[in-house]
Amino acid sequence: MKFKYQILTYKLVSCFFLLNLFSVDLNAQDIRIEPPNWWVGMQMNEIQLLVHADDISTYQPQLKHDGVEIIKIHEADSPNYLFIDLKISKVAEAGTFEIKFKKRGAKNLSFDFELKSREQSAEDFVGFDHTDVVYLITPDRFANGDTNNDVVENLREAKVNRKNDYARHGGDIQGITDHLDYISEMGFTSIWSSPLLTNDMKSSSYHGYAMTDFYEVDPRFGDLDLYKELSEKASEKGVGLIMDMVANHCGSGHWWMEDLPFEDWLNFQEEYESGKDIPTSNHKRSTNQDPYASDIDTKLNNQGWFVTTMPDLNQKNPFLAQYIIQNSIWWVETLQLHGIRQDTYPYPDKDFMSDWAGAIMNEYPNFNIVGEEWTTDQVLVSYWQDGAQNKDGYESNLRSVMDFPMQMKIVQALNEGNEGWGNGLVKIYEGLANDFNYSDPKDIMIFPDNHDMDRIFTQLNEDVVKTKMALGLILTLPRTPQIYYGTEILMDNSEKRGDHGLIRTDFPGGWEGDEVNAFTGENLDTEKKEFQTFLKTLLNFRKNSEAILEGEMVHFAPFDGIYPVFRIHEDETVVAFLNTNAEEKLIKASRFEELKLSTIKFRSVLENSEFSFESDIIVPSGFTILSSK
Amino acid sequence: MKFKYQILTYKLVSCFFLLNLFSVDLNAQDIRIEPPNWWVGMQMNEIQLLVHADDISTYQPQLKHDGVEIIKIHEADSPNYLFIDLKISKVAEAGTFEIKFKKRGAKNLSFDFELKSREQSAEDFVGFDHTDVVYLITPDRFANGDTNNDVVENLREAKVNRKNDYARHGGDIQGITDHLDYISEMGFTSIWSSPLLTNDMKSSSYHGYAMTDFYEVDPRFGDLDLYKELSEKASEKGVGLIMDMVANHCGSGHWWMEDLPFEDWLNFQEEYESGKDIPTSNHKRSTNQDPYASDIDTKLNNQGWFVTTMPDLNQKNPFLAQYIIQNSIWWVETLQLHGIRQDTYPYPDKDFMSDWAGAIMNEYPNFNIVGEEWTTDQVLVSYWQDGAQNKDGYESNLRSVMDFPMQMKIVQALNEGNEGWGNGLVKIYEGLANDFNYSDPKDIMIFPDNHDMDRIFTQLNEDVVKTKMALGLILTLPRTPQIYYGTEILMDNSEKRGDHGLIRTDFPGGWEGDEVNAFTGENLDTEKKEFQTFLKTLLNFRKNSEAILEGEMVHFAPFDGIYPVFRIHEDETVVAFLNTNAEEKLIKASRFEELKLSTIKFRSVLENSEFSFESDIIVPSGFTILSSK
Repeated sequence: MKFKYQILTYKLVSCFFLLNLFSVDLNAQDIRIEPPNWWVGMQMNEIQLLVHADDISTYQPQLKHDGVEIIKIHEADSPNYLFIDLKISKVAEAGTFEIKFKKRGAKNLSFDFELKSREQSAEDFVGFDHTDVVYLITPDRFANGDTNNDVVENLREAKVNRKNDYARHGGDIQGITDHLDYISEMGFTSIWSSPLLTNDMKSSSYHGYAMTDFYEVDPRFGDLDLYKELSEKASEKGVGLIMDMVANHCGSGHWWMEDLPFEDWLNFQEEYESGKDIPTSNHKRSTNQDPYASDIDTKLNNQGWFVTTMPDLNQKNPFLAQYIIQNSIWWVETLQLHGIRQDTYPYPDKDFMSDWAGAIMNEYPNFNIVGEEWTTDQVLVSYWQDGAQNKDGYESNLRSVMDFPMQMKIVQALNEGNEGWGNGLVKIYEGLANDFNYSDPKDIMIFPDNHDMDRIFTQLNEDVVKTKMALGLILTLPRTPQIYYGTEILMDNSEKRGDHGLIRTDFPGGWEGDEVNAFTGENLDTEKKEFQTFLKTLLNFRKNSEAILEGEMVHFAPFDGIYPVFRIHEDETVVAFLNTNAEEKLIKASRFEELKLSTIKFRSVLENSEFSFESDIIVPSGFTILSSK
Repeated sequence: MKFKYQILTYKLVSCFFLLNLFSVDLNAQDIRIEPPNWWVGMQMNEIQLLVHADDISTYQPQLKHDGVEIIKIHEADSPNYLFIDLKISKVAEAGTFEIKFKKRGAKNLSFDFELKSREQSAEDFVGFDHTDVVYLITPDRFANGDTNNDVVENLREAKVNRKNDYARHGGDIQGITDHLDYISEMGFTSIWSSPLLTNDMKSSSYHGYAMTDFYEVDPRFGDLDLYKELSEKASEKGVGLIMDMVANHCGSGHWWMEDLPFEDWLNFQEEYESGKDIPTSNHKRSTNQDPYASDIDTKLNNQGWFVTTMPDLNQKNPFLAQYIIQNSIWWVETLQLHGIRQDTYPYPDKDFMSDWAGAIMNEYPNFNIVGEEWTTDQVLVSYWQDGAQNKDGYESNLRSVMDFPMQMKIVQALNEGNEGWGNGLVKIYEGLANDFNYSDPKDIMIFPDNHDMDRIFTQLNEDVVKTKMALGLILTLPRTPQIYYGTEILMDNSEKRGDHGLIRTDFPGGWEGDEVNAFTGENLDTEKKEFQTFLKTLLNFRKNSEAILEGEMVHFAPFDGIYPVFRIHEDETVVAFLNTNAEEKLIKASRFEELKLSTIKFRSVLENSEFSFESDIIVPSGFTILSSK
């Protein structure tokens, strides 16, 4: 692992400093092999090495390790690449071996390739699911655990400026590791952080979605060891790590942009190389399903660049396809991940995405992946979920998809207030009825907001009661909830709606000297503190509630401004009420007669008061959750 | 046929007048048998007769006809009913035979039951489809062909008042028959009229949806012979008849309401009979699919009365279920229908609806039925279409469902104007992309409006250009279009939105003395006349355009306020442009390069001018349709 990392960071750190660490076999020439290692005992026992070095196509690779053989060597369009197909048979044992590159009349090149032992079995990579609650973090904005890595001089954006919402602020992996107790005690069981890989871009690289090296941790966030440490320490607290991956594009500062292996490594590569205008995506994601879509619209969606600083990868090139699949598996295995979040899901080639997810799920049968299809149309969201009975036969292999439809409906419903023919609470009720159309609703990831949209508190016009109803509902449903960092303290961006930088505001207390510290509660205003406690109580209750985790759901059509949701599992019953009235409301318990609740004693989870369905019920205004346990 | 009709109208017409027409076998006592006849050679060769007469359960039925036998006799809860299961074997020949009802010490009762020969084979009942355009008529408001039947004295609503939008206006079957030339020359190939069966209700019975006799034509509309004549004459002009049926409810004036056969003939019958409040439907149609729906919500949707004057039929009672199925088949066979429109589809028991549609389609394999699920959620609409891969295994046997989702999107799109991320024309483009989710989009019935919603001209704020775009688009798509009478002359209800009576305004020229006559064009204002010509041209073009009827569809993502739709079939290509700009617009033909249009000569269908895609194209404002033929 150490060696690999050295190779990877070779370009970034001064040569002189590293040279004395190199094994004697390694030529002084820059040689890159990706993946830099693999494992024995993997399902994927045929891998393809990308080799990059000056004129490498004129060299002959050789290796000697029992059970490992080179099956095929592919030249690329650029002379500086080789792609080597390696077969790792069952008899291969873990260990490091040399891959030699020979050329008549030239000095040999060499790379020490390690086959590692697996640290856990494939079945033990258990993916996040509906029993988890995922904490989404924008790492640059969460906590600055190590100020030494704030500025890394040889990177294009080598400064921090907390006053600029689009600049780097210094948050890092150490910052997350430092606050695992907080995250875990709040009741989150999973962390999805925005990408932590190198984004060596001129500006706005803080968000992490313009990767310039798919095998390297951004030095401003830390390094691979810190990432591994985060995963291990989180795991000890019962918190899993979800990695944010991007198969659609890289950043324009990617190392291969100066010397692309093939003529079709990128989409619209010809335009890029000849300095022409490069078409951007038309964002018509519906072309993926549309039986009437024109070729040009489909092409523009899939092949147009997301933005001009993000070269669009051509997943129809089999070498690139294999590269991305291996990269994903490498990270899962290296970091012992418990999930992947895949960015911009409907933009890459959809057959590739199915292969990609299929390969990962084949390697890790209990794993989970969530894909981002940003659409409020459930017809499209459900299409992407594994098990969908699609007319075109498409099988995504993707267990989880994001619930933009319900996110929108919940916000609209609460802002509309009173239920009408299709408005207010009825919108939530009817929205959830559509769950019949998902192959597995529990695996759908629901969220009040995320890093790309207004903070939920802003969307709900800074109404705390409505925000509690939204969060309360989300945590009661048979879904996989995701909550964005700061939601627990009512972070908002009301000052400027739609401002991404502002949405991703620094978490108070994450930086030394912060006046307010939301981790400790110091100087945190009462309303925010109270909301934090609300969420903490709910999250920790949910964690142990079999009714919420595994129970059946029964809901009743909203009436009188109240929406009742029941979760029932063996001897536990949970009831959630959304009461949109400003006042408490008396309702008849007989309405719920079919559930036979009259002999059950309930307690209010948030108030710890008692509650009974024997006769009429007083439903408090706002969010109420009752449990029979 | 004549005899049956006499039986049916027995109650309505004076006894003295009819008595001398009766066969000697018929007892003077009122005996009702439904269906009043059947046919030889039907798939459904086991039928169940509903027999209604005083104390009939104390009689013993007998019959003698080769190949026909009574299999079982069922008593009901009321002594005045018998249900007789009849088997009609293959050897049975057409003819009339007596069904005798014997009772010791009482005079026999008798009914002459006819087994008819079929007039056409099952396969010849060819349903309406995407090659048709359906003209929807509210018969009371279309044309008054016979003023003698305007007032029928022994009915509860025995007056006409054209000044009251909710009263009867006198339109009738003769009025439709009289104007078949108009309908056919306009280019419509199918007529769906609102129900023509007796609605013997105190008020607001003009719409026809509160049936009080499932085997009788409302005398204010005409009689069965006139209905048959309409069907025959329409058929001669290539126009088929779609009958509007209601399985969910009857009218409170139904003959059986005074003496219901079973205790569970109606839903909430106990409440009805004991004079209690009868629950009305909660209209939560989503309970049909909702995996979380409570029993009470599901029950209220399916069993709650639609309105208090419409008793809700309990299709779980097998006798009622069989009654409705036979009734439908009886009408198809009697009138040689080419389709059924089923009202309020998601309200009756859904398993029954599947059996009902299944029985009809089993009898008539080439037939068509369209169901009304009024929802703008495509997830629900697609659920109901035959062939949907529903997770719950539900198979509807229903070929056609109504396209409320696209209706809404077209109106919103045109009213929004410019295309945005998901607005304007993009809404239409993305809405149609969802066709991937229908088992057969061509069979989905699209419409600009119908009898239950604001007139399209009103919905589009009386903008003629937008109305042309809406109609033009609807007639270009691979769909089954339906157009409401009067749309061709821009009828509106802008004076009062949502007013059903106003929406169903009298068609000008349908009444003697009308100042304006839209059939002849007399005094019709220029704008309306011009729109009528626009629609006539388009409908007649569509009728013969293989590209529209059978072609592939290719559409392009909207740009610059323009949405292009292509239909391509062998040597015919049709192009429709929706240009929302106030002015014509120059666009690049190269955008459509993939379709190889440059050598094709097009003509504008509406203008008869020439058009070419050789270089740039000038797209006129509004709706343009081009054809290569």
